[in-house]
Amino acid sequence: MASKKLGKKKDYAKLAMALHKKLGGKLSVTNKGSFKTMDDWSTMYTPGVGAVSSHLAKHPKDARLYTMKRNTIAVVSDGSAVLGLGNLGPIGALPVMEGKCAIFKEMAGVDAFPIVLDTQDTEEIIKIVKAIAPGFGGINLEDISAPRCFEIEERLKKELDIPVMHDDQHGTAIVVLAGLINASKVVGKKLEKLRVVIVGAGAAGRAIALLLVEAGIHEVIVTDSNGIIVEGRAGLIPYKKELAKVTNKGMRSGEVLDAVEGADVIIGVSGPGTITRHHIEKMAPQAIVFALANPIPEIKPEDAKLGGAAVVATGRSDYPNQVNNSLAFPGIFRGALDKGVRDITDVMKLEAAKKIAALVKKPTAEKIIPSVMEPGLTKKVASAIK
Amino acid sequence: MASKKLGKKKDYAKLAMALHKKLGGKLSVTNKGSFKTMDDWSTMYTPGVGAVSSHLAKHPKDARLYTMKRNTIAVVSDGSAVLGLGNLGPIGALPVMEGKCAIFKEMAGVDAFPIVLDTQDTEEIIKIVKAIAPGFGGINLEDISAPRCFEIEERLKKELDIPVMHDDQHGTAIVVLAGLINASKVVGKKLEKLRVVIVGAGAAGRAIALLLVEAGIHEVIVTDSNGIIVEGRAGLIPYKKELAKVTNKGMRSGEVLDAVEGADVIIGVSGPGTITRHHIEKMAPQAIVFALANPIPEIKPEDAKLGGAAVVATGRSDYPNQVNNSLAFPGIFRGALDKGVRDITDVMKLEAAKKIAALVKKPTAEKIIPSVMEPGLTKKVASAIK
Repeated sequence: MASKKLGKKKDYAKLAMALHKKLGGKLSVTNKGSFKTMDDWSTMYTPGVGAVSSHLAKHPKDARLYTMKRNTIAVVSDGSAVLGLGNLGPIGALPVMEGKCAIFKEMAGVDAFPIVLDTQDTEEIIKIVKAIAPGFGGINLEDISAPRCFEIEERLKKELDIPVMHDDQHGTAIVVLAGLINASKVVGKKLEKLRVVIVGAGAAGRAIALLLVEAGIHEVIVTDSNGIIVEGRAGLIPYKKELAKVTNKGMRSGEVLDAVEGADVIIGVSGPGTITRHHIEKMAPQAIVFALANPIPEIKPEDAKLGGAAVVATGRSDYPNQVNNSLAFPGIFRGALDKGVRDITDVMKLEAAKKIAALVKKPTAEKIIPSVMEPGLTKKVASAIK
Repeated sequence: MASKKLGKKKDYAKLAMALHKKLGGKLSVTNKGSFKTMDDWSTMYTPGVGAVSSHLAKHPKDARLYTMKRNTIAVVSDGSAVLGLGNLGPIGALPVMEGKCAIFKEMAGVDAFPIVLDTQDTEEIIKIVKAIAPGFGGINLEDISAPRCFEIEERLKKELDIPVMHDDQHGTAIVVLAGLINASKVVGKKLEKLRVVIVGAGAAGRAIALLLVEAGIHEVIVTDSNGIIVEGRAGLIPYKKELAKVTNKGMRSGEVLDAVEGADVIIGVSGPGTITRHHIEKMAPQAIVFALANPIPEIKPEDAKLGGAAVVATGRSDYPNQVNNSLAFPGIFRGALDKGVRDITDVMKLEAAKKIAALVKKPTAEKIIPSVMEPGLTKKVASAIK
């Protein structure tokens, strides 16, 4: 079991299997109205509901007043990149999507429903999401592998009139930025001056790089399995070419080990084992290490510390400094639904990161990121959306 | 307002608009688990949920043990035939689908979720429903116009491994048969010997005809806007040709008025005004009239009585004898989910109709159909599915 590899931690795999069996599904659809009298039936359903339907056919925008669309998000996945576990398909994705929807409700009162798709074809996914969109107030894309996720999100953002966000990209990027804002304070370095190396150029790696650049961090280098992504590197696929244009201004090339030489921050968004003590030892003093692969991080926090890391964050809830998307996505969609925004912009993402960071009054090496149970969290994040 | 035309009835249109606005959506998605401690987070979501996902990727059938699939139905509509109101599109359909889902929960504890589609293309609908199916334990098709609904249902039944039912067809047919079983007792006629005329050859008309034939009723005649459907009639589209083969054994031809001459039963599944007192006056003594257009019946019950009808049923909850699909579909899907059946067969439908009829201990002209609030209803219907 995964957790065994991490040492003395609890066996969450076993606990989760037992809990999921006991619950038999983590979500329930409940009825907000009443069916106690025949008058209830006649207003909740026929004949009365016919008047609501006729009205909405003429005034579709009023769906936000009369239907669940006002508070409902689809959590859509094709199961092609489930957590850090790979292509598990729609059924493999379902427990994660249910969990996400449960968190949506718990954190933000959002009615979210999982839609797991039996196709991994880009055009089909776009067509399907567009077709099912009328009943939803927003679309949260989830665990869709790169590079397909980029086109799917971009096209849906353009072609739908409701907010669309691929959380593995932007939710992660927002919380990473929030963590970096506080980590830079802990180590006494200026955010904009940080030299950042991102190990992994998938959905999360790309989005983190773009948001950090947007936040004014001057030197951001992204690496993939072939080393540093730099303009002119042979065989770069289109989105990595785009990435090369806006990152790595120093035009470094070589391997990850070359990239981390003197770096202030290393962010792992790849898989277990891709960051070693050796990498950390080559970094500048007071190194910041985000090892975000889930459920097994790129490097154990204990080992990162031994390598000289001053601040370590992971994606796990059983270590300090969890880079947890749940800090961001519930509030973001809460805000989007409440304000009726059509799009979640970069400005909103930066603002959300600042709001999350500000919830930690006195950042320390063990606390650069607030807990998901921090009072007022969702409301604060939602206030960034306007 | 529709209800005004029906005389002194309550203004359900107005009441429904007010209720829908107050509720702001009739459904809510709720979380069955807990997020009170970090251990809760680690088992409901990452890292623990990864073990459940990995397990299900290898053993997809276990989704019925570990996920919401075990109790969840999609209520899918393209809004092409919403109630008797016509093509209102996906947003127009949404309040009806929400109501249906609310009834699923209220009557049978089924978690049903509305999916309203922004396409009315047969092949696209089939593709989309197949793609979203992995997360669901069954598909309830709803308010999709004929003849597309026939192919959509047939193909999905064949190509999916979960039960699929178009409720406008089969739910209606089951309750009509249940009503006829009791109505025939009230008028002292034998069910199999009834001469039945169905006015309207759409989704409901076709399904009612086929189920009544299946139930052993010897003479069933279906009419459409061109009169009696009979083998050899010029210009019959394919499904009506098929219908002509199994109905109208006496090979009658002509108009609806010709068909009702001496008939025992007239069933309206068309629209307001298509049945008049004149039709009823031509029927055999002790006529049975089902005027099922919703929200406005083909003929007012008062007028049907004046024409000589002995028993009258409508689709409305504010008249006696409501032919209400809610008597059937919740129990049918409850049974299908509990028994894990892959298909809802004709035998199950006949059995369900008998179970519903049997709930009325002593049928009278004012009570041939049980109330949706009849204790034990859903359990009885569910027991027909095995």
